[in-house]
Amino acid sequence: MVQIPKQQPAQRSVPTSADVARLAGVSRATVSYVLNNTSAVRISEPTRRRVHEAARELGYVPHAAARSLRAGHSRMVLMPTPEIPMGPLFSRFFNELQWALSRFDYTVVQYASLGLTGEDAARAWAELRPVAVLAPDASALNPRGVTVLKRSGARAVFTLGPHRVEGAHALLMDGRRVGEAAALHFLARGRRTIGVVVPEEAGMEPFSRPRLEGVRRTVERARTAGASVTELPLAYEEASATRLAARCRARGIDAVFAYNDEYAMLLMRALQDDGIDIPEDIAVLGSDDLMLGRLLRPRLSTVRIELPSGRGLAELVDRVVRDPGAEPEVHDVLGADVVHRESS
Amino acid sequence: MVQIPKQQPAQRSVPTSADVARLAGVSRATVSYVLNNTSAVRISEPTRRRVHEAARELGYVPHAAARSLRAGHSRMVLMPTPEIPMGPLFSRFFNELQWALSRFDYTVVQYASLGLTGEDAARAWAELRPVAVLAPDASALNPRGVTVLKRSGARAVFTLGPHRVEGAHALLMDGRRVGEAAALHFLARGRRTIGVVVPEEAGMEPFSRPRLEGVRRTVERARTAGASVTELPLAYEEASATRLAARCRARGIDAVFAYNDEYAMLLMRALQDDGIDIPEDIAVLGSDDLMLGRLLRPRLSTVRIELPSGRGLAELVDRVVRDPGAEPEVHDVLGADVVHRESS
Repeated sequence: MVQIPKQQPAQRSVPTSADVARLAGVSRATVSYVLNNTSAVRISEPTRRRVHEAARELGYVPHAAARSLRAGHSRMVLMPTPEIPMGPLFSRFFNELQWALSRFDYTVVQYASLGLTGEDAARAWAELRPVAVLAPDASALNPRGVTVLKRSGARAVFTLGPHRVEGAHALLMDGRRVGEAAALHFLARGRRTIGVVVPEEAGMEPFSRPRLEGVRRTVERARTAGASVTELPLAYEEASATRLAARCRARGIDAVFAYNDEYAMLLMRALQDDGIDIPEDIAVLGSDDLMLGRLLRPRLSTVRIELPSGRGLAELVDRVVRDPGAEPEVHDVLGADVVHRESS
Repeated sequence: MVQIPKQQPAQRSVPTSADVARLAGVSRATVSYVLNNTSAVRISEPTRRRVHEAARELGYVPHAAARSLRAGHSRMVLMPTPEIPMGPLFSRFFNELQWALSRFDYTVVQYASLGLTGEDAARAWAELRPVAVLAPDASALNPRGVTVLKRSGARAVFTLGPHRVEGAHALLMDGRRVGEAAALHFLARGRRTIGVVVPEEAGMEPFSRPRLEGVRRTVERARTAGASVTELPLAYEEASATRLAARCRARGIDAVFAYNDEYAMLLMRALQDDGIDIPEDIAVLGSDDLMLGRLLRPRLSTVRIELPSGRGLAELVDRVVRDPGAEPEVHDVLGADVVHRESS
């Protein structure tokens, strides 16, 4: 076993690949071939082992940035993270995507934009010189931002969200589909006075607006006599839900699409405390198909959202990185269908 | 307004600071001073403006890695992310910390370790050459990993979690406190046969074990006649909860600390469906003080966990970066107290 002294003087100089080469008795090029797993050059097993042992003994690790400076680009995929916490659905999706990208030897890094949007955000991301960027809609990446990223060397710029951005590939997540599924569900069950919860919390608009729009559009197209859509602002707190329950009663709302399962749970409690029967008086529908919906009584109906497989997306990202000159592609990746339980 | 052509040929060369210097009619050093906001050198406002305009026109952004190669270290703070999704509590904490660190001009980057632990994980992080690392316990960073990071130039290595790691500063989050608060709450209310839920899902052990240990330790120390602690494995699914409810009844459990509010909700439903009265027959306690607990009937009692302010932590990180030779510090950062509602 190689002995590593336990305490290092803090300002001790960082070991370089030249140190590794010296200790292993090989050239710097050989060190680079071995540690970067280059398959183009054949290197004997004993030499490989010697290099790895020397690197370990010295505590040397390759410098991703130096490597990327030499190569002209990095293997870093940057995923700017939205400031609102991701739900379990998106967490799972991102986890899967990160795994899949790592199989293609990309290093996936998440970066909180912290209030920066558009071109400013793009400039901050560009400083890290990612080879690919997957930008959620909340980052408000714009065409100028895409240009900034491409000029800094990003070969693949993708947006994830309801909108396309000129110059970028789009993984289109059209939230209107979610609203559409909800509206069709209610209309088919004879509901006419449909309310749509719009969360009042900051940062939710990119998600809530398309859902509302999807409900409106579907109800308009259906031309069902007497059907109407009411926007229902709701803060994620009990007092707000209590007020909204009274409003639903006063306005004769007979169905509410409650944005997601958590807001649905909040509203259901307030409706039930107000003596309103679910689904008899008011049908309630959430979305995301979380466990909690199955635990409520009545059991919560919900819109199940399907996201694409991480593996498929990783292949797409890799393909675009290899062929950065290709025309921007648009992939429609969001599916939505209703899981009918007892609340609707 | 500066005009930027909309489409860039993909392989066009990336603009450099030399291009900016040429267009602005200044030296490269001046470009560097202006764009890196160096305060040591006085540069006139018009010159500053010319440099910024040239940079914008060319689409130039500084290269964080190149800058860090010159400086010998970066301003990157790396936060490896655990693979299990963070709850709202930790999401808020991390958000706040990221904001606070950005005020100190650090770039905070999250990195999913994707199955790597210990020294292997440290080596992957070291490739990014962060100046500071905040490693959650789930990453299983070990003393050798700390050495790897320090040798690669990291000036501040912190762990966040229940354990100290030699050579690293510790933000000690002692989950035993959570179990301790739960146990004291039950004992004070005359409960004796205490069950502790331990989630069966992978990756939860670093969080669940200390809570169980905290309950055990507290009950042992209290020396209350007849008091016992039973470990209750529970998967996050209804069938598992149904089996556990039957088991609680069979074993005469009179109080359950259910790991967190979500597992508590799952178990409460199963207990209630089994005809068990809460809290009369069995008292139930969650943790994290989520909104959903207030919406349950009976309202869920819960352990509220207090995490330190992001601002305070950011100051600590910055102080250690400036004085990397200092002895490792241990900060006890987790507080826990019970919010008593109706379920206990």
